[in-house]
Amino acid sequence: MDVRQYIQDHAAEFAGALSQWLAIPSISADPARRGDVGRSAEWLKDHLAGTGFPVVEVLGTGSAESAGLPAVYAEWPASDPAAPVALVYGHHDVQPVEPLDEWDSPPFEPAQRDGFLFGRGASDDKGQVLFHALGIRANLAASGAARPPVTVKLLIEGEEESGSTHFADLLRTHADRFACDVVVVTDTGMWAADVPSMCVGMRGVVDAEVDLRGPDRDLHSGSFGGGVPNPLHVLADLLAGLHDEDGRVTIPGFYADVLPISVPERDLIALLPFDEKAWLADAGHSGATAGEAGYSTLERIWARPTAEVNGMWGGHTGPGGKTIVPAEAHAKLSFRLVADQQPAAVIAGLQQYFRDRTPPGIAATVTSHGQGVRPCFAAPDTPAVRAGRRALQRAFDASVLFTREGGSGPEADLAEILRAPLVFVGVGLDADQIHAPNERVELALLLKGAEAAAYLWDELAALAGELTSRRGQRAGRARR
Amino acid sequence: MDVRQYIQDHAAEFAGALSQWLAIPSISADPARRGDVGRSAEWLKDHLAGTGFPVVEVLGTGSAESAGLPAVYAEWPASDPAAPVALVYGHHDVQPVEPLDEWDSPPFEPAQRDGFLFGRGASDDKGQVLFHALGIRANLAASGAARPPVTVKLLIEGEEESGSTHFADLLRTHADRFACDVVVVTDTGMWAADVPSMCVGMRGVVDAEVDLRGPDRDLHSGSFGGGVPNPLHVLADLLAGLHDEDGRVTIPGFYADVLPISVPERDLIALLPFDEKAWLADAGHSGATAGEAGYSTLERIWARPTAEVNGMWGGHTGPGGKTIVPAEAHAKLSFRLVADQQPAAVIAGLQQYFRDRTPPGIAATVTSHGQGVRPCFAAPDTPAVRAGRRALQRAFDASVLFTREGGSGPEADLAEILRAPLVFVGVGLDADQIHAPNERVELALLLKGAEAAAYLWDELAALAGELTSRRGQRAGRARR
Repeated sequence: MDVRQYIQDHAAEFAGALSQWLAIPSISADPARRGDVGRSAEWLKDHLAGTGFPVVEVLGTGSAESAGLPAVYAEWPASDPAAPVALVYGHHDVQPVEPLDEWDSPPFEPAQRDGFLFGRGASDDKGQVLFHALGIRANLAASGAARPPVTVKLLIEGEEESGSTHFADLLRTHADRFACDVVVVTDTGMWAADVPSMCVGMRGVVDAEVDLRGPDRDLHSGSFGGGVPNPLHVLADLLAGLHDEDGRVTIPGFYADVLPISVPERDLIALLPFDEKAWLADAGHSGATAGEAGYSTLERIWARPTAEVNGMWGGHTGPGGKTIVPAEAHAKLSFRLVADQQPAAVIAGLQQYFRDRTPPGIAATVTSHGQGVRPCFAAPDTPAVRAGRRALQRAFDASVLFTREGGSGPEADLAEILRAPLVFVGVGLDADQIHAPNERVELALLLKGAEAAAYLWDELAALAGELTSRRGQRAGRARR
Repeated sequence: MDVRQYIQDHAAEFAGALSQWLAIPSISADPARRGDVGRSAEWLKDHLAGTGFPVVEVLGTGSAESAGLPAVYAEWPASDPAAPVALVYGHHDVQPVEPLDEWDSPPFEPAQRDGFLFGRGASDDKGQVLFHALGIRANLAASGAARPPVTVKLLIEGEEESGSTHFADLLRTHADRFACDVVVVTDTGMWAADVPSMCVGMRGVVDAEVDLRGPDRDLHSGSFGGGVPNPLHVLADLLAGLHDEDGRVTIPGFYADVLPISVPERDLIALLPFDEKAWLADAGHSGATAGEAGYSTLERIWARPTAEVNGMWGGHTGPGGKTIVPAEAHAKLSFRLVADQQPAAVIAGLQQYFRDRTPPGIAATVTSHGQGVRPCFAAPDTPAVRAGRRALQRAFDASVLFTREGGSGPEADLAEILRAPLVFVGVGLDADQIHAPNERVELALLLKGAEAAAYLWDELAALAGELTSRRGQRAGRARR
């Protein structure tokens, strides 16, 4: 029996299982739902055991001081101990559901309408996790083997929608168990149902606050205006100076570690049927696009780093006028980062920028909260991406384009801590309304995802030599 | 008997009368003190009648819809009906007195200590109004005449400390009675007790608010950052662009009507013993001065117009970070104006600036509340200023330098509505703590003021031809 046929034959069963799982309200951000997140993990454990995974386990996270939510780990070894090892990453927790009255059917009472399955988590991420269980069964049915051609590990966390607080610790604690040659991220989307595509990168982010101080109190502008530096003028000046005329960021060293976008990737991005007007309308932006010269809008929001002012305040902001030279001026900034930028290096550059340019009479401090999120990138010419793309192309009977995502998850931690390359296999759509009311998934696309997952193990096995060649090197680096 | 001797002989009497008047809490901003402002006007009327003014009257202001506070008007005609007419402007209302517990003696129980008279209004402006009553008596005592050598009119308003709300209307209503060849403003200060000086100009002011709108809601910077214009970036850019590298304002036409500061005035300003470090320390400003290239600090704050950002806000300003491209950005601005700038023309220029420079995708609106305050200027080479300066030089036995003030009162209305040149004769000091607790005045300086006022009528009479030569022209213009 071939993969596609097997999956078609089990489609109804798959939708039924997914509906069961979706009925569990595993909202990780809601402390009252801790029990439900636990039930969701147990449900997945049982389902994966039923699928045939010889090793399935619920892993607690966190510590006595900071309780975490459980992840699920499963493992199905290949017959050949030297075969490549793939670790699938996804999550079983879901977003909150407010505003409830905007849902056409209750978020935790999954409903099928017109080929879609509606319910919180249908697309993000339970549907996409679950197709791996169907995919591996299809792979075995097609090969007639008892084990997959590569060792398949699943690591499905329970805190992704609340910041993956304990995930990096979990990875470090179990680094030996999770050791792999490739990380398969199954939490991303495609361009459109009829334009299959593969994500190859996610931007990181780091934030900063800038505080400028001038006089020790607000000054009367009649007495001092025009004679002393005004912190608001200086702030406007320095924020305006963050970009040059070409929209490039002027922070020292900002682009030093940026991996240029390759010509083949640019060519594939250019093939995407991007409707810029519709995109702007979607943003409620009546005007025009803007950004770094020499890049298309998609390249700008996916593959290029940014400096964005998120907030700014100082002086008199209430009703009426107040003729002052204000004592202080403030701004909040964030930077979207691309491979191989490091959050700390960008903040250091920002601090140098303000050190170099703040005029006498004004004191500037630049602070950053947290460590930021590193960008991640799956280079299109790596064996992992080539295998993943071939698997998707076989499932969709079509050429697969490349996309990236502007936002960020724990993917960089996976790549960094496990020292393995990433490949993104996901079939979500923008239209899925993830994080919003009426989240849904197109069941036919989930089945395509299962099919791609089934092919993926064969495609990875075919590149075994390339995938495992750097094992010693990775182990050596991990030990440092 | 000479002027100086007469004034010395009546010094105690003068201080006694002033103390009586200072005991009346004529706080115009406090509705509960309306009766006291009225009592203050009656006290002054009686005092001026006792001085010998043949015409003295309390003038109501405002209307049924908007009640005003009373002004006092007095007139002492010269024998010669063709003699110049001088109108003295001052005010009998005072500032509020909070915080009360910082006063060493109660604000309305005048107390003499170490040659100073302490009390609200001692310097601003009752002391300076009252020295004119003493001055005109000294003038008559010295000349032996029954009438002054010029017609002296006094117009002492009761709303200066609460915005002179009804003053322009009062001037228009009684324009014929107030007709004059020179307006003597007696509500300004000198550089220092040992550096007599004369104010020759006051900056005007006009305010504006700028509102920028981009997307119709805050956008996720992961999805849109780097691809659409950010209102905060645009605001920073346009505010930064308000000044060029030389600190000059770039608004179209901003300097078109600016009267350049003359070389003689610059030379006199340069003679002032200005301690820039002390001035900065007084401002709580640890750093350096800043402003328009080519001008000294005093020239910048007195004789050059400014564009000042008083407040700025937009996007996320609360705790923590929020990775958004915000929907809006706002700023409050004010402009200090110098002769002959017009508030409306500056606002029109600002609107054009934003129209010309706001990029596609961002909508900018520029609004201004009220009509602003026009600047005023008493050119040093006019007969009025020459006469006033000579009077002060005789009183102080010293050369008198020129200053200006950065702030604004109704002086431009006086000059504009009465079509008469201004001259400023005032002996207040920065150390007088006007508008603050422990307001005081140096009694010896008030007596010098009385002496200068006595000489002023003779000096103006000596320039009669020059002062009255433009009468027909003024009347003609006033009729338009």
